Amino acid sequence: MNIHRVISTINSFNNLGRNSQTNGINRLAFTHNERLAALKFSMYCQELGMKVYFDEIGNVIARKEGKNDSLPPVVIGSHIDTVPEGGQYDGLLGVVAGLEVVRHMNEHNIVTDHPIEIIAFSCEESSRFNVATIGSKFLCGLLDENDMKQIKDKNGETLLEVVRTMTSTGINHTAYHHKGSMKAFLELHIEQGPILENKNKDVGIVSHIAAPHRFKINLKGTTSHSGSTPMPMRKDALVCGAEIVVAIETIANQFHMDGIVATVGGINVHPNTMNAIAGDVTLLVDVRGIDTDKRIQTVNMILEEVETITATRAINYNIEPLGQDHPVKLSDKIAQISEDNAKRLKLSYRHMFSGAGHDAMHLARICPTSMIFIPCKNGISHSPKEDVTKEQIENGVNLLIATTIEIASEQTVL
Amino acid sequence: MNIHRVISTINSFNNLGRNSQTNGINRLAFTHNERLAALKFSMYCQELGMKVYFDEIGNVIARKEGKNDSLPPVVIGSHIDTVPEGGQYDGLLGVVAGLEVVRHMNEHNIVTDHPIEIIAFSCEESSRFNVATIGSKFLCGLLDENDMKQIKDKNGETLLEVVRTMTSTGINHTAYHHKGSMKAFLELHIEQGPILENKNKDVGIVSHIAAPHRFKINLKGTTSHSGSTPMPMRKDALVCGAEIVVAIETIANQFHMDGIVATVGGINVHPNTMNAIAGDVTLLVDVRGIDTDKRIQTVNMILEEVETITATRAINYNIEPLGQDHPVKLSDKIAQISEDNAKRLKLSYRHMFSGAGHDAMHLARICPTSMIFIPCKNGISHSPKEDVTKEQIENGVNLLIATTIEIASEQTVL
Repeated sequence: MNIHRVISTINSFNNLGRNSQTNGINRLAFTHNERLAALKFSMYCQELGMKVYFDEIGNVIARKEGKNDSLPPVVIGSHIDTVPEGGQYDGLLGVVAGLEVVRHMNEHNIVTDHPIEIIAFSCEESSRFNVATIGSKFLCGLLDENDMKQIKDKNGETLLEVVRTMTSTGINHTAYHHKGSMKAFLELHIEQGPILENKNKDVGIVSHIAAPHRFKINLKGTTSHSGSTPMPMRKDALVCGAEIVVAIETIANQFHMDGIVATVGGINVHPNTMNAIAGDVTLLVDVRGIDTDKRIQTVNMILEEVETITATRAINYNIEPLGQDHPVKLSDKIAQISEDNAKRLKLSYRHMFSGAGHDAMHLARICPTSMIFIPCKNGISHSPKEDVTKEQIENGVNLLIATTIEIASEQTVL
Repeated sequence: MNIHRVISTINSFNNLGRNSQTNGINRLAFTHNERLAALKFSMYCQELGMKVYFDEIGNVIARKEGKNDSLPPVVIGSHIDTVPEGGQYDGLLGVVAGLEVVRHMNEHNIVTDHPIEIIAFSCEESSRFNVATIGSKFLCGLLDENDMKQIKDKNGETLLEVVRTMTSTGINHTAYHHKGSMKAFLELHIEQGPILENKNKDVGIVSHIAAPHRFKINLKGTTSHSGSTPMPMRKDALVCGAEIVVAIETIANQFHMDGIVATVGGINVHPNTMNAIAGDVTLLVDVRGIDTDKRIQTVNMILEEVETITATRAINYNIEPLGQDHPVKLSDKIAQISEDNAKRLKLSYRHMFSGAGHDAMHLARICPTSMIFIPCKNGISHSPKEDVTKEQIENGVNLLIATTIEIASEQTVL
């Protein structure tokens, strides 16, 4: 593989949406820059002789034929959207790695039995719609038009409206994939956590994906004047929310050894001004773990604490569920193939679970699926500080190439 | 006085900026609706035969001549801007009450020795610029062009830019007032607190205004992925901020009997999404009291707590001061005149301090100044729930009329 080509391709995508002051990447789902990245991907694929099409939700699917085109493809994929002020590698690395697999095969005249496909998924990040992995959900038939009417962004635009606007200018094909329509799905991704770096491992072979349990907590107090409302007469929804934020951290700390994390990443406050006690506060809560029982226990303890804190403060509350996915088990067989190839390539490796959700978790429903992680600096992602070395990228892409080619042989039975 | 005329005038102003769904009033400083309210006020004054001018910062000043125009005027004033989704009476009541004083005098052919002026101040609320009472500060010579370059709204527009845009279409006069340029300043306002209602008093005669001490606390943690960052490896600026919000309430509760209040009314979180640990959080803190020593003690305890909490969590912080006004003592002589008139009008009254800041606190530097409060329902203001009865308005306006006319006599020495 050619690491310089990989790096320059990554940079070429990141010129779309880069904030020159912060170096943050801004390709929020279905924005101008994210759609330009989808077009750029399709052009790179066409240069490689691949057939390309866009599905209704903006996923880009590119196909390199194999020796036998009636066989189901081996699919490599990840996403091209980012969080606001995101990093350079989250998602994009897996898409560019797919391109490098095909470039490598073309250069060395490698034609596998099975076709190879690369998918650049749209809208993996939940930043715009508070719902993650929208592109892969749609592709796997887990999201219909009715769902798309319910899902709204912060401006109140529905996903359906946003997608309709976009697809009216694109080439429209449905792309529902059913069980058996793919031989395997592979995703290379940065870890987005500190474990590989701390344990000094070249690659992670992912066994499970810990799905998130997400909900909103809305708190209704009373907006009143910050100067003339004595302390004991307040119904301050922000202090109530703050007490809940601290309580959620305390609860999650208790389950840390079980691999549970709980986060309040977002808070909306009304009226949010200096001189008014906040009357309305909404917290966005995200709880994850691969142990479903412990995750449920964590959520229950949080809800109990919300009940106690709001009752003490005479604040009304409402819980709005935002999704409760099941943790996903990935393919042991592909993990074994990756492990064997890692040994052959002299890469140190670790079997691990993914704390973050990924497109791969939906693909796992329709075909044997695996993920390869590479370390990232200080475990940071979703930030301009997200960083990986050339060597780390090289290790990951080499393992992806080897695993893909082995799986794409008719002799490999999964 | 004519209470129906007062109510219908209040309603006529509140048709500007009313949200028909929530009934909240939206006349944020220097917006279209707030400027239309300024024009409406000028038209009402012109109908009453008053001379009207706009000063450079958009204050509207209307003058009814007295028997001796060389005497300094007795000035009635308050503001016409609101917080976002504010109430119907905060500020506007005092301006309309001024109109009713002059309407009453015209109807009964009352001409006082001293001229009467009414001022509708611009930008009293801090919602737009995080700085309160901008119009009255400017009028009293406490705000110069340099200050106006430093003060910015959330979009980064400076006060100077905003004001320049606005005044280019208006009639420009400077209106600096110096010590002795007014005989007295009177402001009628809703209490914005629960005391008069709880004590069942018709009016409050204000002895002091408790000025705010305001600052921003900026917290810098590390933005990272909410799913893949184990609990002990986080630098979560939002949990840190939440702990500080709770601590500020705890500290203020200790000083409650000293009349201290402390509020975090605003919080800005970055990136503020479901799937990212917040790396950057800013809290807007407002501490008030008429006892300067206790207020300083409160602020010092808050800063100490910020130091401790951030150190424990390895979060960096920065404090940005936003103003630290001195509590203001109002005129005992005018308070005595109001008390005598309240007795004569058979109004129950209470001497009290104002927890909220008001334009009157700056006017107190240049002339004897007094405030009259009326109760408001449940002490609520800055909210569509802000409410007062017709009788409460009637009581307040009657006392304002009597006090104004008595002070505007040359025989009344202050």
